[in-house]
Amino acid sequence: MKRIAVLTGGGDAPGLNAVIRAVVKTAINDYGCEVLGVQDGYDGFIAPGGVFPLDLAAVRGILPRGGTILGTANRGNPFARKVMQDGKEIIIDVSDKVVAAIKALNLDAVIVIGGDGTLHVSMELCDKGVPVIGVPKTIDNDVGGTEVTFGFDTALTIATEALDRLHTTAESHHRVMVLELMGRDAGFIALHAGVAGGADIILIPEIPFRYDAIIHKVRQRVERGSHFSLVAVSEGAKPLGGGQVFSRRGDAVYVPRLGGIGQEVAEYINAQGFESRVTVLGHIQRGGTPTAFDRWLATRYGAAAVRAAAAGRFGHMVALHNAQVITVPLREALAVPKRVNVDSDAVRTARGIGISFGDENN
Amino acid sequence: MKRIAVLTGGGDAPGLNAVIRAVVKTAINDYGCEVLGVQDGYDGFIAPGGVFPLDLAAVRGILPRGGTILGTANRGNPFARKVMQDGKEIIIDVSDKVVAAIKALNLDAVIVIGGDGTLHVSMELCDKGVPVIGVPKTIDNDVGGTEVTFGFDTALTIATEALDRLHTTAESHHRVMVLELMGRDAGFIALHAGVAGGADIILIPEIPFRYDAIIHKVRQRVERGSHFSLVAVSEGAKPLGGGQVFSRRGDAVYVPRLGGIGQEVAEYINAQGFESRVTVLGHIQRGGTPTAFDRWLATRYGAAAVRAAAAGRFGHMVALHNAQVITVPLREALAVPKRVNVDSDAVRTARGIGISFGDENN
Amino acid sequence: MKRIAVLTGGGDAPGLNAVIRAVVKTAINDYGCEVLGVQDGYDGFIAPGGVFPLDLAAVRGILPRGGTILGTANRGNPFARKVMQDGKEIIIDVSDKVVAAIKALNLDAVIVIGGDGTLHVSMELCDKGVPVIGVPKTIDNDVGGTEVTFGFDTALTIATEALDRLHTTAESHHRVMVLELMGRDAGFIALHAGVAGGADIILIPEIPFRYDAIIHKVRQRVERGSHFSLVAVSEGAKPLGGGQVFSRRGDAVYVPRLGGIGQEVAEYINAQGFESRVTVLGHIQRGGTPTAFDRWLATRYGAAAVRAAAAGRFGHMVALHNAQVITVPLREALAVPKRVNVDSDAVRTARGIGISFGDENN
Amino acid sequence: MKRIAVLTGGGDAPGLNAVIRAVVKTAINDYGCEVLGVQDGYDGFIAPGGVFPLDLAAVRGILPRGGTILGTANRGNPFARKVMQDGKEIIIDVSDKVVAAIKALNLDAVIVIGGDGTLHVSMELCDKGVPVIGVPKTIDNDVGGTEVTFGFDTALTIATEALDRLHTTAESHHRVMVLELMGRDAGFIALHAGVAGGADIILIPEIPFRYDAIIHKVRQRVERGSHFSLVAVSEGAKPLGGGQVFSRRGDAVYVPRLGGIGQEVAEYINAQGFESRVTVLGHIQRGGTPTAFDRWLATRYGAAAVRAAAAGRFGHMVALHNAQVITVPLREALAVPKRVNVDSDAVRTARGIGISFGDENN
Repeated sequence: MKRIAVLTGGGDAPGLNAVIRAVVKTAINDYGCEVLGVQDGYDGFIAPGGVFPLDLAAVRGILPRGGTILGTANRGNPFARKVMQDGKEIIIDVSDKVVAAIKALNLDAVIVIGGDGTLHVSMELCDKGVPVIGVPKTIDNDVGGTEVTFGFDTALTIATEALDRLHTTAESHHRVMVLELMGRDAGFIALHAGVAGGADIILIPEIPFRYDAIIHKVRQRVERGSHFSLVAVSEGAKPLGGGQVFSRRGDAVYVPRLGGIGQEVAEYINAQGFESRVTVLGHIQRGGTPTAFDRWLATRYGAAAVRAAAAGRFGHMVALHNAQVITVPLREALAVPKRVNVDSDAVRTARGIGISFGDENN
Repeated sequence: MKRIAVLTGGGDAPGLNAVIRAVVKTAINDYGCEVLGVQDGYDGFIAPGGVFPLDLAAVRGILPRGGTILGTANRGNPFARKVMQDGKEIIIDVSDKVVAAIKALNLDAVIVIGGDGTLHVSMELCDKGVPVIGVPKTIDNDVGGTEVTFGFDTALTIATEALDRLHTTAESHHRVMVLELMGRDAGFIALHAGVAGGADIILIPEIPFRYDAIIHKVRQRVERGSHFSLVAVSEGAKPLGGGQVFSRRGDAVYVPRLGGIGQEVAEYINAQGFESRVTVLGHIQRGGTPTAFDRWLATRYGAAAVRAAAAGRFGHMVALHNAQVITVPLREALAVPKRVNVDSDAVRTARGIGISFGDENN
Repeated sequence: MKRIAVLTGGGDAPGLNAVIRAVVKTAINDYGCEVLGVQDGYDGFIAPGGVFPLDLAAVRGILPRGGTILGTANRGNPFARKVMQDGKEIIIDVSDKVVAAIKALNLDAVIVIGGDGTLHVSMELCDKGVPVIGVPKTIDNDVGGTEVTFGFDTALTIATEALDRLHTTAESHHRVMVLELMGRDAGFIALHAGVAGGADIILIPEIPFRYDAIIHKVRQRVERGSHFSLVAVSEGAKPLGGGQVFSRRGDAVYVPRLGGIGQEVAEYINAQGFESRVTVLGHIQRGGTPTAFDRWLATRYGAAAVRAAAAGRFGHMVALHNAQVITVPLREALAVPKRVNVDSDAVRTARGIGISFGDENN
Repeated sequence: MKRIAVLTGGGDAPGLNAVIRAVVKTAINDYGCEVLGVQDGYDGFIAPGGVFPLDLAAVRGILPRGGTILGTANRGNPFARKVMQDGKEIIIDVSDKVVAAIKALNLDAVIVIGGDGTLHVSMELCDKGVPVIGVPKTIDNDVGGTEVTFGFDTALTIATEALDRLHTTAESHHRVMVLELMGRDAGFIALHAGVAGGADIILIPEIPFRYDAIIHKVRQRVERGSHFSLVAVSEGAKPLGGGQVFSRRGDAVYVPRLGGIGQEVAEYINAQGFESRVTVLGHIQRGGTPTAFDRWLATRYGAAAVRAAAAGRFGHMVALHNAQVITVPLREALAVPKRVNVDSDAVRTARGIGISFGDENN
């Protein structure tokens, strides 16, 4: 193994720099191998100055830093790249150009750190002959084939701290505080943070909820002397039967304002006579210094990716399985998107300690 | 001094419990004085069970906890209390009833922990004979007569951490990240956090801004090689000339969607061709465990309030002045609301290190 | 299942209260079962007032709090209890008394949260007929049968933050900063925190080190322009060949002062002409609020323990296996103490990114 | 003002980089002035390559980073520099050489960021014609002439977090936990953190303590049902009458082992029959990212120092006074070292809430 490249794709996640650092250090120290950095995802291969050497000095001090020193792609898919032509946006396929550029660089491996989308693209490029090794990255924990990926623990930590902070305001003001968290398709952040942060109601994409079940829980708590509630809601949570909501308060028909699901839930609760406020945590969940766990996992992933490259395991990605870092075929890992198992001991545990998922029959 | 009462009013702030604890401990240890707690602000005096004894056991373990064990008033002003009558909300004056209830309790002092609104009410009750000692509380730092109050440092810390986290995403994605912070009338949180968190643009109520000055700054940074910017904006920041915004991009007239000023700023920046995202930090700023500074200041305030009560300094509030806790007349402290001094060394410093307030002539 | 008891044994760990809370909530909500709390470990069964009911109110608000509301045993082993008799300390066996007390309470299960020692005792009591369900607890991560237990992630987080803080001092002062961490027999904290915190040298009980290898690494870094180093050392790390150290610097024979291994290592490095300082992190690693991960895992353990009790899986403990909580026989889990696998990908990763374990041949 | 230099001296403190950044940005943006960085304190002026240009790029990203990018002096005093000659360490005066080097650089000002020692040296160099502007820096808060300096708030925050963590272990194990904090001559860290972290006993250099008063407090708490205590002790705290300690337990005379005062206190408490443990927080207090307050103050100091330089206020240092940054003559500021005022409202407050300083008559 003489020369490898490394790139990052998709949204940033705490731990990307730790992976890059481990790739560079392991390749140079253990294999005497040259490492190239690629700017802004696959785009970098066909952009002027988009590929450059990464030595030990280039990765010094980046372990605790969020973001990625390589930048990430905004138009990341080479099979469907958006470009402006005659004032209009069109989509073209530049994948052959990217493959040619990679071949011209004589790379023994391309280590790709990315989420579901980037890894799918990488699998297709692998089919076209690019020696890809994947490193899964996702805040939402929605990549299959691995117990967890880096970034999730940091997001979970930030979300839990936010719930801790909202808790005291909820209690002092007798309010229902709603926290909207990341998770379009997978509710792991809301589920884990909700349990860790003492939420009373957790709404996730995997379990469609009913508004009346939320109110039932809030009212039940009031009746038992707890004049406040905490709600953790995934941005992708949906009411049973879809978006339309009709609810009466006196004679008024409730019609929700535009806005995310968190706001909708808070407005509904308000309309039912319980004072409620919403906070949308947003991008704060995905930036900044990674937790110790994420640095540790990211470092192991980076090192394992280099070893996988040396072993020629192309088309595979590294994964955490039972505390060991292993490799799994990308095709297998990406076959089924990862979602919260609604029958798992985790969800059962949450229900058992009295958390409502908004789907109970009362 | 035989018996005093303590209550909290207005929105919660980290440090309220630390004040309550210091009041109780100092009154009992130093003066052998009985302390009564009042539930949910002045309302507690006229509510059944709204007044109860606070002993040392009642305040054990509350020093690091956010919120207030006494609850805060939702209808806090006894001079203008909202009540439902015949299905309609009307406003009545219950101040005489509150004064009578206080007199009946034979209190040597009433220690009131609250913001601008609560302290104004307290001043008026003092005029009616209630032996009030004030303890200023404000997240926004907008209470006059004191250098700073507890709660502000915690809010500042949380806001700065949020900027730190947004920084790496901004940098990795070449984006303009906008963070909306508390501060309806006073921009201290945005100013201090903006400087501490490395913001490039700070928008505060005291300095009306122009949208084109924001874009000028963003563009200037891009030209100098920094393809991202961080904007800290007070919720009360306003564009020069008021709310209406017309801006052309190609042929389209920009009309902002409903939402806070943070969203408006982000949408404007997006419309000008720079990718932008907004985060509204909201209630997270005012909850949770207080910083060491806020615990320290809150404890000193609580103890000083008891000493002021013993010295008969009614109608005064405790205040921080040159590292000493003193007392100042409420009337004097509340005469002029506290705002960011736009000619101070603090604002000048921010400008000098290259921060734009959106009011520069370019 | 009508009535169960819960107790905590051994040193405290962040997450104990989260387990207790989940046990109480799950037992009451899901099984309508009464829960008794036992004060200060098994001792509580035979102490006056040592057993008392735990209802939902008793566990309110304890999720984020460190320590244990039940207290832990100082003389925890009922088979070998230390008592004072005639002015001397003697050891007696009170296990039969404990078993009798437990039987008299008509308990359907005793949920025991503890480390290696407490779980061993519990296994023996189980042999005597006590219906024990174990919940593994260890800061050091040295309990077998499970991937990890709660408490470890919090310790790891605190240790990593400490390394982050020492890093800048090391760099500014051109020093070798040594951080002594928990881990008498197992080096997991030093290994994980060392990797996550960017240590250059990691010394753990599982890999005997040579002083000259440490100096070799420090010198090598200086030669490459890094005039500082960070050393993470487990309290149980030992030099090859045992404790005695003789090292010459000029004519002086180096004789280490009394103190922990961290101090010894720092003094040795100083004696070799590199300025060094030691910090012993100590009890700070095991107290305070648990991380989100530890709260999540602890809650799942507590709930799973109640389910295991209902299923009659006595003599088993709950365990984390591939992201699922399962049960394993105590006898099996405790058969082999858990240690860092020196041939694992984790250790190999650390070596690959340039970390020295003090055992390299130079 | 055409050219200025900036250097850092003494131990590192969180916020040094924030000052350097503000100096560079303000000098370049506001004054169009060149800035030189000096490596490792005054030594840099006479070392090869010890002076180099600092531009905007050089200070990018350093705001949140601990330590100093300029390094600090180990042999910082040019009037008494330690050098090796013929195998022995001798002390020589190189101040004239330093002054000559500074003059040769045609500097309009030298901005010196340092503690008591460095500022004293700077005052003497000012007398020799060096245009010095001081920026006070101290973890311990022991520099006079200013309410507070940067670094202290970070140290206080870390110390308070440590007390929070020790609290739960103390409570769970019925122990007396002792935390030794920085502060050789001034007890501010122990006083502030002790109050903020809920310590029961605070021992500081300014108030000599008696061992029996400590035990009295511990015993009193046990009698009142609190079977644990927290002790915050400055490293410079001293028992009344000096170091010798004789105490009987049965027939044994207690002779303390070597070690810091924290260990001595813990061993004494143990010898009196109360289980006790000590933690020495050490260097962790002075490294790592600064708090928001320290970044804010450090930035204001840096900017104000440049303005003071432009105004020709040599021999002055910047200072915080009543929320404003002003300048004070170094001679005046350094005349009296700053210590805890034992008659202040702060100490009185601590006593009032029940904290013992170990000097009470029982």
